[in-house]
Amino acid sequence: MFVKNCWYVAAWDHEVLADTLLARTIVGESVLVYRKADGTPVAIDNRCAHRHAPLSLGRKEGDAVRCLYHGLKYGSDGRCTEIPGQETIPDKLCVRSYPALERGRWIWVWMGDPARADEALIPDAFSLKHAEWRYKPGYLHYDADHLLICDNLLDFSHLSYVHEKTLGGSPNIAEARPSVQRLARGVHVTREVRNTVPAPYHARLGGFSGQVNRRFAYDFLVPGVLLMHAHVKPADSADDDMSGALQFHSCQALTPETATTTHYFFMQAHRFRLDDATITESIYQSLCTAFEEDRRIIEAQQRLIAASPPRPMQPIAADLALSQYRRVVEQLMEAERVSIVQPPAPRTPGTVASTAATR
Amino acid sequence: MFVKNCWYVAAWDHEVLADTLLARTIVGESVLVYRKADGTPVAIDNRCAHRHAPLSLGRKEGDAVRCLYHGLKYGSDGRCTEIPGQETIPDKLCVRSYPALERGRWIWVWMGDPARADEALIPDAFSLKHAEWRYKPGYLHYDADHLLICDNLLDFSHLSYVHEKTLGGSPNIAEARPSVQRLARGVHVTREVRNTVPAPYHARLGGFSGQVNRRFAYDFLVPGVLLMHAHVKPADSADDDMSGALQFHSCQALTPETATTTHYFFMQAHRFRLDDATITESIYQSLCTAFEEDRRIIEAQQRLIAASPPRPMQPIAADLALSQYRRVVEQLMEAERVSIVQPPAPRTPGTVASTAATR
Amino acid sequence: MFVKNCWYVAAWDHEVLADTLLARTIVGESVLVYRKADGTPVAIDNRCAHRHAPLSLGRKEGDAVRCLYHGLKYGSDGRCTEIPGQETIPDKLCVRSYPALERGRWIWVWMGDPARADEALIPDAFSLKHAEWRYKPGYLHYDADHLLICDNLLDFSHLSYVHEKTLGGSPNIAEARPSVQRLARGVHVTREVRNTVPAPYHARLGGFSGQVNRRFAYDFLVPGVLLMHAHVKPADSADDDMSGALQFHSCQALTPETATTTHYFFMQAHRFRLDDATITESIYQSLCTAFEEDRRIIEAQQRLIAASPPRPMQPIAADLALSQYRRVVEQLMEAERVSIVQPPAPRTPGTVASTAATR
Repeated sequence: MFVKNCWYVAAWDHEVLADTLLARTIVGESVLVYRKADGTPVAIDNRCAHRHAPLSLGRKEGDAVRCLYHGLKYGSDGRCTEIPGQETIPDKLCVRSYPALERGRWIWVWMGDPARADEALIPDAFSLKHAEWRYKPGYLHYDADHLLICDNLLDFSHLSYVHEKTLGGSPNIAEARPSVQRLARGVHVTREVRNTVPAPYHARLGGFSGQVNRRFAYDFLVPGVLLMHAHVKPADSADDDMSGALQFHSCQALTPETATTTHYFFMQAHRFRLDDATITESIYQSLCTAFEEDRRIIEAQQRLIAASPPRPMQPIAADLALSQYRRVVEQLMEAERVSIVQPPAPRTPGTVASTAATR
Repeated sequence: MFVKNCWYVAAWDHEVLADTLLARTIVGESVLVYRKADGTPVAIDNRCAHRHAPLSLGRKEGDAVRCLYHGLKYGSDGRCTEIPGQETIPDKLCVRSYPALERGRWIWVWMGDPARADEALIPDAFSLKHAEWRYKPGYLHYDADHLLICDNLLDFSHLSYVHEKTLGGSPNIAEARPSVQRLARGVHVTREVRNTVPAPYHARLGGFSGQVNRRFAYDFLVPGVLLMHAHVKPADSADDDMSGALQFHSCQALTPETATTTHYFFMQAHRFRLDDATITESIYQSLCTAFEEDRRIIEAQQRLIAASPPRPMQPIAADLALSQYRRVVEQLMEAERVSIVQPPAPRTPGTVASTAATR
Repeated sequence: MFVKNCWYVAAWDHEVLADTLLARTIVGESVLVYRKADGTPVAIDNRCAHRHAPLSLGRKEGDAVRCLYHGLKYGSDGRCTEIPGQETIPDKLCVRSYPALERGRWIWVWMGDPARADEALIPDAFSLKHAEWRYKPGYLHYDADHLLICDNLLDFSHLSYVHEKTLGGSPNIAEARPSVQRLARGVHVTREVRNTVPAPYHARLGGFSGQVNRRFAYDFLVPGVLLMHAHVKPADSADDDMSGALQFHSCQALTPETATTTHYFFMQAHRFRLDDATITESIYQSLCTAFEEDRRIIEAQQRLIAASPPRPMQPIAADLALSQYRRVVEQLMEAERVSIVQPPAPRTPGTVASTAATR
């Protein structure tokens, strides 16, 4: 149902402070996210091995966490280190530990086989922490299957209709054909819209008296990470002249909470007027408004699909990227099914996870 | 689960204005109801064929509707006429169209095989639009299986108990035996209650100093349409003397939304003091109060049935009409099952529906 | 799923006044609880045999109850005594009657085979009505499987963690090993905690300058009834010297409403300063605060279990009593399954229940 062997964004850095015990459900599993004294993020099963009370209602004690139901204490590797009133601790009394690390301002968690956790697979969301870019972080909760939101992000023709009065502004966007390139773990999409009107939100940022050219170029990678360069500039400027361009870099991550609910971490960074906080705020507000427009229609779509007799969706040309992406996801899931059927390598969850977490 | 080959009341006329895109779920299907420029009602599947976004969040463009997710446009026959950025339109890219028409002040939709849509099957709710009758229209939403509400309407003995202080007034109503006659698509019920007290709501309408005779005579037709003549008059007047009678005609329609929720369209028209708006209002208020009394017990009944271990209901004599009606419904459903097993006639949903809608 | 052949607490006496028709769901069955004119409690199926309308929306008429949907009337033995407009009453037109009686201040209902209802099986909650004890009655509704609450009550190690700042006060409680004794229909648990600090709530009751000894000794009986003697006294007093002790007796009863919701009736009586109402109130408030602490973690535990992939719970030594209790429950359920497979003795529900109810 989900690709497991990949890095999921679990939280913004500011969601997990020194004392926080954050419970976050990812692909249906309740994960406890917190920090060791040195700041390193930890991700372990939120269910105490004993009676499945949530550790998020427990207490941080140094790098460990104590369940505040019957007092069992767990190290950051998921091993139980104390059972009140009991000398020996059975090996089985441990909770699963997930490889976790911080990159940019996101805390990433590997939900699959810890032995396969590979830092190189973390998407390069460079603008999350970069001196040349500014942004304000955003989060939305969706009552929808994350794949419906992936669909949305993989076909920007919706800007013309869903975001007519915000990020869009013209049917031209829908009319432009994007180019789509298959990647190992996703797709790359490029869409150019020439000689069009600036979007209402561009107008608010100022400076375009005439028509503009817009360009969107992004990777969209499992499990739902969009990394996009976008710009808008006067239509009469030379293609390689970026002097009058507004340049953006957007990082957005969809993390399925359950089969029908989704965490949505997002930001859109700007590379111009870095010291003007009103610009940062204006872009953030425009994004929030537009993403509410998306949420309204996607949650309605989800409800309609859930309530209606099943019926196939009919493909159109604009589905190229989303069809490709869904195929990538299916192939990765199929590969995981096959690898699970084969005998897995022996492993001790706590130990391996500990190794991964401290990389 | 539902009789499909029949006309369902989808809306009061005033619910669908010139610009309205009304989403209404009928027998589990989300239907978009709107009007063409000439006022003719249209009913099509509310799900865009592309990604199943609700067309009710779209935009009316002339007689057509545009999905405001990716911009697909549909004619009132359900055919797609435009896909942004795409030249050819596949035949499969259409939404189902339902035969729809307006009669009286109700918009009726045929939920079954369009080829069998027959206007002659529309129940004759004549008082919905008639110079000699006055009423105020009502609507209720029920969290209950529509059949439980049919049961209620098919046994007026409940007036003595549920409506003791509103429409009833005496155990006499429950004690009177109705006569029940089987019809092709329903039942006809007549109940006379002689030498009884006026109901509290009659008392408010004025004019009865002594005992009265009451008479209820109604057709109850699939899928849940009640058409009733009722009157109350002094008990000492001759049977054919209607000079002192208060005469009513009531049109009520139950439209299943889902298996456990129901739309309830209702009115009770009066044929006396036509120019006294306070009479019209008083009857409407009495009905609303009484129908809340019904809803309270029927929704409680629904919850109890849903939450309890299954157990057969025990029949009593008063069930005669409701048992007959349930048998009519089962026979019609069985007939539809048989007809579906046989090879259906080939049809193009859009075309046929269009024909039906413009009759 | 539940032991049926046992007495369940259905209500506090004050919940069922002379005119009350109380609907209370017990082990998934909606039961109507009311009193006859002489005060004797009655428990019958809340569903009218006719169309399953709730009798709790009906009307008491003497010792009988009338359904206010179609007017059927039932005696306190569950037999139908009147059907409006109908002479004969079929035998099947009766509702199930449950043996019911009042003991102390609780109304108990037998949910299993009435022929096996045995008053001797009612747990001896003597302090519910006793001149030497004072208390204020409590009730909580839980969104949790009652067995999770049984677990809680069967392992007081949680006092150290869940109730650190209320009923606990020290890890000593968790460190003390209880003794557990198997009973025919439950377990007996004794826990002594010596040389510990008084609990915060003891401190509020006053009088301890130094360390204390605490003792808890309780029966925990199906279907979830705790009957506990507890005391706290100066650690330096002789074991048999109760002069400086605060003595408590607590009666608590868990009644499953459904598989995942529970009624919780509770009180903790004190045997000291009987005429000081502030003591009674203070103990009640402490209990309410502490039981909210329990509810918070147990409902979170329930949600986590319901939402997570299934995984076995890992036993620890502190589970001794709860494991024993769960075994008792399983054995009683297994015994009931076997007895149901064998041909049951013929019985008329109404009659037998009537007998039981008037014992």
